[in-house]
Parts: sequence; structure tokens; C-alpha cells
Amino acid sequence: MSKFRLAVVQLQVTSVKADNLSRARRLVLQAAGQGSKVVLLPECFNSPYGTSFFSDYAEKIPGESTQMLSEAAKENQVYLVGGSIPEEDGGKLYNTCAVFGPGGEMILKHRKIHLFDINVPGKICFQESETLSPGNSLSTFDTPFCKVGVGICYDMRFAELAQVYSREGCQLLVYPGAFNMTTGPAHWELLQRGRAVDNQVYVATASPARDEAASYVAWGHSTVVNPSGSAALTPPLCVADLQYLSDIRRQIPITAQRRDDLYSVTSVQEASG
Amino acid sequence: MSKFRLAVVQLQVTSVKADNLSRARRLVLQAAGQGSKVVLLPECFNSPYGTSFFSDYAEKIPGESTQMLSEAAKENQVYLVGGSIPEEDGGKLYNTCAVFGPGGEMILKHRKIHLFDINVPGKICFQESETLSPGNSLSTFDTPFCKVGVGICYDMRFAELAQVYSREGCQLLVYPGAFNMTTGPAHWELLQRGRAVDNQVYVATASPARDEAASYVAWGHSTVVNPSGSAALTPPLCVADLQYLSDIRRQIPITAQRRDDLYSVTSVQEASG
Repeated sequence: MSKFRLAVVQLQVTSVKADNLSRARRLVLQAAGQGSKVVLLPECFNSPYGTSFFSDYAEKIPGESTQMLSEAAKENQVYLVGGSIPEEDGGKLYNTCAVFGPGGEMILKHRKIHLFDINVPGKICFQESETLSPGNSLSTFDTPFCKVGVGICYDMRFAELAQVYSREGCQLLVYPGAFNMTTGPAHWELLQRGRAVDNQVYVATASPARDEAASYVAWGHSTVVNPSGSAALTPPLCVADLQYLSDIRRQIPITAQRRDDLYSVTSVQEASG
Repeated sequence: MSKFRLAVVQLQVTSVKADNLSRARRLVLQAAGQGSKVVLLPECFNSPYGTSFFSDYAEKIPGESTQMLSEAAKENQVYLVGGSIPEEDGGKLYNTCAVFGPGGEMILKHRKIHLFDINVPGKICFQESETLSPGNSLSTFDTPFCKVGVGICYDMRFAELAQVYSREGCQLLVYPGAFNMTTGPAHWELLQRGRAVDNQVYVATASPARDEAASYVAWGHSTVVNPSGSAALTPPLCVADLQYLSDIRRQIPITAQRRDDLYSVTSVQEASG
């Protein structure tokens, strides 16, 4: 169990939800057919990304999109990190990642903790908080391979989340994400490599495919980074090798050399899920 | 005061201590003559880097090397981050960075907190702990420009140190360092860019110049990274622009968006210096 195949699915996302769902389902099947045990879909995989779309495409969980995810996980016997969808609950909207186990059961629901509110003049202004509410829980889950920590896109900018996850034993961090043509080239790979090298974990991201005609143009570049901080831009299929992770941690033993007598990184609230 | 010139001095270090000191002094003079207000020297700038050299080159502080640093700071009216030297105190050896103000006064003494003990088979095995003892304090100092956090080389691998410093208000982190031909290409720039982008601060490193004939071959590549995570490999002279830093923090406001209700990074021991 020290190696497992991991697939990051860079999905074309259109305004037709049914097409998005069927495309995702087909690609999960394909990834599983190639031996993947963990499959990662992109942020906002069932809807165009944009504050004007979220309420129209939002669903309850369970609902149409997560029902498909549950079935796809079960049919293919994979852990399926279902990217994210706009979720409606109690009159509020969330950017939510649902994770399903190989039995089709929902393992956890991660609501994006850090909303994407940025304003780079002349480049990009986006305010998720205009329509979305933030989640309030950290999210990890166990697999037979390793423990996995979940964040969504902008969550990746916050080193603390990855640090807490890795201290809780996660060896793989997954971030469905949709960086854009400004923040993508500037930070997408850097942040992933940083999370990986600082915590000596695998980091995987899945982005919607780039669509120059979309109102929000995703950077794409779905990536898997190894625990030494080297990025492989050759998904969808990567092998996570936990023996390699263990070797890296022995060779440059920062996880054992931390000075817990001088500083501390802690979860204030217990992780959910 | 929103901009200031910062010089990172990539110094040739030989086995002749007097030459190292005079060369450093000359380069501080030169950097100051070009308008630098903060000057950074490399790790182990008065001695070859290696466990077999530390005891021979070690000094008390104050001592010959730090006396030179004090005079150079005063003569040139600069903040001088004196790289590091092997320090002897109470029968123990430390890897120590002394910082001097423009009046020649020693502002702080940072003893490397995280000793460089790594073993990458077939590539590099180095155990600072064979001869050195670790410091036990964090180290920041104030300038008229901004607050500065100090680490030495391997200290840079520990994200927590940079996080604590930035939470204490540092806008510049300095790391005299001497990565090698294995860890240098793998991680030197990545770690600096990661510290910078995660904390939206300037990060500066100064390395001994590469000497292929040395027993320990330093990677070189002294660098300054801006708060957006872009590396400038064109030292020695860089301008730190605190207005730019402020703009970056407003555009992508992660320092204000952190979820302190969910996680926390804290200093266990109050910073010294």
C-alpha cells in the first residue's frame, strides 16, 4: 500500500450542467480504468465559476451532482474528491467539496474556509463573499493509503491549513482550484511546491480546463507535487509513493527537527469529517 | 522611508580569516557607497564552512570579527546583518549572526535555532550538531524602515519561524545561508519565494560565493524576493519598497483573511533581541 495511483482530472466546464456531470463521470471511469485509487475533480466542476452563476447552479447536498459523484465513486471503487460545487443550505451558499469513498458513501463535506476576495487593479477583482459564505471546519479523511487533507483553491494560500493537516498525519493534500490568468502564473505552482516542501507531503490540484471564452478564465495547469517540492505538470495520472515520502523525511528530517519549544501551529477547532 | 536600499553581499570566503574580514569590510563600504541602508553578509563569512573548521575559527562575541562588523556599521552608517560566525561561549560553539546598528552598537545576536543535520545518501551528509549547539531564541530588530526577522540558513526551512516574525510585524526576513549543490538547486529559491508569498514580506539571503575547490561547495545565488514571491537574482543592490508591500497586502489580503478562529501560529517563547 506504499504506492497508489492518483488522478487529477482537468475538466472542461461549460454552462450546461448535465454535460459537466456526464463528462466528469466519464473521466472518473477512465482514471479508474487506468488504476487510479484516488481521483480529484476541479473546483466548481458542475458550473461556470462566477458569483453570477453560483445561485443558479447551487444544489442541496445530497443532490443531483453529489448523487452522480456517489455513484461514480462506487462504480469505480475509488476515493473521489468531488472538486467543488455551489451548495445551498439554509438560505446560504457555499463553495463545497464533497468526498466519497469506494462504497459510494459521502465521507466529508469541506466548505471553502477562505473566500476568494481579491482586487488587483487592472487585472482581476473577484469577491466570492458577495454571494458565498465561508465554511468553518477543517477537513481530513482516511484512506487505506494515507490520510488526506482537503482545501479549496484560495484555501491553499494559507500555509497554516496545510501545516495543521500535516501535523494531523496527512501525507496528501488536495486542492480543487481555479486560479486565473493573473494569480495562476504568479502563484499556482509556487504555493503547491511551498506546501509540499514545507510539510514533506504530496500536493495535488485539479483545475477546470482553460477556456478563453469564459467570463472567468481558469489558469488550468492541474499539478501534482512530490514531498521534495518538485512539480509534475504531467497529470492526470501520478503515483504517490509513500516510501519516497518517508525517505525524504528521513534525509531532511524537518518534521522531527521542528522547535516545538519555540513556536507552535495548532488547530483552534477540531477537524471535522 | 517607504523605500530603502538593501545589499546582499555574496562573499568569497577562504581559509585566511584576515582576508575574509577585510574583504567583507570593503564590500560593506562599497554597498553603503551605493546607498544601501541595510547590508547582509553570508553565513560563516569569516571561516570555511565545515564542522572541522568551526572550533578553530570560533570567537567570543565581542571578538575580532564582530569588532570589525561594529566598526563597519558605524563607519558606513548602516544596519549590518553580520552573516554568521562560529561563536564560542561557555565551552559551546554556536552558528551566530550578530546585527549592528548605524551607531556601531550590537543590536542582537541570533544563534542558529535549527542545526543543519541532513543525510541525503550519495549526495550530502552534514551534521552541524556534531560540533554546534542550537540557539534558543527568536530574533527581530527594528530599523527606521521596517522590522526585520533573522534566521540562519537551515532556519529558513521552518515556515513557523517566518510566520511568527511576520505576525510580529516584520516586513523583511534575512537569512544568511550556505546551501549546497544538492539542496541549493532543489530548494534555495523555492523556500525564499514560499516565505515571501505566504507572509507577503521581503526575503533576502546572502551566501558565500561558490568555490568548487572548497570541502563544502556553497550554492551561491544570493537572492532578494519581493512580497509577491518574485525572486530577483540580481543582487547585490535591491530596493525594498514598503509601499509595494502594502499594495500587495491590500490586493490579495491574506494577512487580514487568515482564519484565526480555526488555527493559530504562535511563538512559545518571547522573541529576544
